[in-house]
Amino acid sequence: MIPCLIATPQTFRFTEPLALRSGAVLPAYELVVETYGTLNAARSNAVLICHALNASHHVAGCQIDASGQALARSEGWWNNMIGPGKPVDTERYFVIGVNNLGSCFGSTGPTHHNPATGQPWGADFPVLTVEDWVQAQARLLDAMGIQTLAAVMGGSLGGMQALSWTLQYPHRVRHAVVIASAPNLTAENIAFNEVARRAIVTDPDFHAGHYLKHHTLPRRGLRIARMIGHITYLSDDVMNEKFGRSLQPRAGEDSTRAAELAYRYCTQEVEFQIESYLRHQGDKFSAYFDANTYLLITRALDYFDPARAYGGSLRAALARAQASFLLVSFSTDWRFSPARSREIVQALMENGRNVSYAEIDAPHGHDAFLLDDPRYHQLVRCYFQRSVAQEVAA
Amino acid sequence: MIPCLIATPQTFRFTEPLALRSGAVLPAYELVVETYGTLNAARSNAVLICHALNASHHVAGCQIDASGQALARSEGWWNNMIGPGKPVDTERYFVIGVNNLGSCFGSTGPTHHNPATGQPWGADFPVLTVEDWVQAQARLLDAMGIQTLAAVMGGSLGGMQALSWTLQYPHRVRHAVVIASAPNLTAENIAFNEVARRAIVTDPDFHAGHYLKHHTLPRRGLRIARMIGHITYLSDDVMNEKFGRSLQPRAGEDSTRAAELAYRYCTQEVEFQIESYLRHQGDKFSAYFDANTYLLITRALDYFDPARAYGGSLRAALARAQASFLLVSFSTDWRFSPARSREIVQALMENGRNVSYAEIDAPHGHDAFLLDDPRYHQLVRCYFQRSVAQEVAA
Repeated sequence: MIPCLIATPQTFRFTEPLALRSGAVLPAYELVVETYGTLNAARSNAVLICHALNASHHVAGCQIDASGQALARSEGWWNNMIGPGKPVDTERYFVIGVNNLGSCFGSTGPTHHNPATGQPWGADFPVLTVEDWVQAQARLLDAMGIQTLAAVMGGSLGGMQALSWTLQYPHRVRHAVVIASAPNLTAENIAFNEVARRAIVTDPDFHAGHYLKHHTLPRRGLRIARMIGHITYLSDDVMNEKFGRSLQPRAGEDSTRAAELAYRYCTQEVEFQIESYLRHQGDKFSAYFDANTYLLITRALDYFDPARAYGGSLRAALARAQASFLLVSFSTDWRFSPARSREIVQALMENGRNVSYAEIDAPHGHDAFLLDDPRYHQLVRCYFQRSVAQEVAA
Repeated sequence: MIPCLIATPQTFRFTEPLALRSGAVLPAYELVVETYGTLNAARSNAVLICHALNASHHVAGCQIDASGQALARSEGWWNNMIGPGKPVDTERYFVIGVNNLGSCFGSTGPTHHNPATGQPWGADFPVLTVEDWVQAQARLLDAMGIQTLAAVMGGSLGGMQALSWTLQYPHRVRHAVVIASAPNLTAENIAFNEVARRAIVTDPDFHAGHYLKHHTLPRRGLRIARMIGHITYLSDDVMNEKFGRSLQPRAGEDSTRAAELAYRYCTQEVEFQIESYLRHQGDKFSAYFDANTYLLITRALDYFDPARAYGGSLRAALARAQASFLLVSFSTDWRFSPARSREIVQALMENGRNVSYAEIDAPHGHDAFLLDDPRYHQLVRCYFQRSVAQEVAA
């Protein structure tokens, strides 16, 4: 085994009701958390990592089995970014990964029991917003005795949470690292979310969101949702490079000569490699992800729009922020394009905020924020060493 | 009623078997056709219009009821382009609209009866290619006594057919007008087709493509397929302009103040206008389009790749073409981007062919080829007046 930071999830239980933006109240809830590194005596070195759609509190390190052995392929979703000596260095920072409310990875969500009925929440789980998640995360910090974050950091939907932290708790965040994110979804972004949701909701096994009661799962819908999502995470370039128009070899065919295979002329079976890849991604996802969680998280994305309360002015909305910012975008990201990050940068500059911005020329589309691009990682490393570290030491 | 060219469909029956690229043979078949204008004595003024996914032989003019009255909203799908005095002027040209094999609008397709079984073809209808369609169209011209086309013209998949005409029958085409098209699909294009097909095929009402025998229709799958398609037909710009993040007003709400409506916090119902629009498009489409036709046509798109037989060299593939070409692309078309049209232009120029190319700066995405953009229409008008007309008169 490669030596690996050991990740041990902890559960925090909250009994004070949480009033949500929708008007609903969550009477009590649990958050599952992993931490890496050590909180310093001044409690000034905490870094909160916010996750996107298909992720959790398990940000870095490996999971272990009962005998203490690290499990294969159990690395956290941002393990290339966070750990000892990594860009976010756990020798220096106390890093917190938290699973959001509504998730299906441990924190209170639709697969859990509704105390009012004793049945799984299912579709009755209250609708959530980015602001609700941030509020729950702030209570977690209270419980941990952390007043101020050295940094809050996230990519995509995680970047929206980082941005929202600077608006909801401006004096509790020194730095916000907002990667491959956007100030809100465009109509096209919402459209992709909606098609994915319709695929789930119209699956006959969805049962209006109460599939658990019916002892079934809307796997067909989840597969389609994931396939759509996956297309939007990748760039046209990287798909052409990885798959192009290559055919999927069948039993007995030479996979090294995929370009020379003959068409099989079929409509329902796999013909091209890209089809096989997407089907595999859909199958894998539908085996572990909860359909109601998918609806809740995509809706939180749709609803995020800090400028909305300010007549559409992002400048006015971001006036509350006090943090310093690092924004990063990726040239081929067409889900949250560099132009969307630049809107945030522009609004922050108009407010006189301290903001650094880098647009990384990377071929991988939106997924680039999870990948190990040396310029990108070096950038984050430098930002933590030069900017975040200063105030931690001070 | 507005005066309208009257469109009268005719059916041509072919009893000579058609050998398809897949190796299958279609024993006999019918093609439904509309024509507009008059074939001249020299038989030199015929213009063939090839259709894309969701279209038919009904290209121009209006349909009439039994009493000869024009039906409301019955205009052909390219009625703004084709008709008396229009860019493709039916006072001068004999324009032919033909419904392709495998369609659900009249020509022989999967909803028709398989003569071998007496049952609907369903999923047993043979897989089709662009080349098969062009071969069937050539036989139609034989039956009409037309040796040479003044022009063949189409947008999107229709443009692929126009391009294929110049390769399969180089001496029967004087001009090819190829609009918003591509020399093949990218991996991303295939990916979108595949997700749409999976939505259809995994609909429990699909019954492996034999839904007619089960007296049902896979409407859920068709809805999702159309919603995905629709996103790719539009540009992000035009979606933002038309819908933006506006909410869908509900009963009793003021639709003129959509921007001020409050979030309703729901995951399964419509919240944003773009959702309502997409659902409407999906519902409409699923009520009239055949699911097996959808699979066949998207597969014909996937398979089109004239360079494939030439080791990937488009230049080598297009060496057979003898026609003159007009290519048109639209700046915001991300389904078949201008770069894809330029690949065709480049390969034609390398072969010393006569080629004109225009990239129209239009906000409407792929759909622009169906819309009434004055510069675009003027361009096509001029091409027909200056280039196509010359040889018709000669």
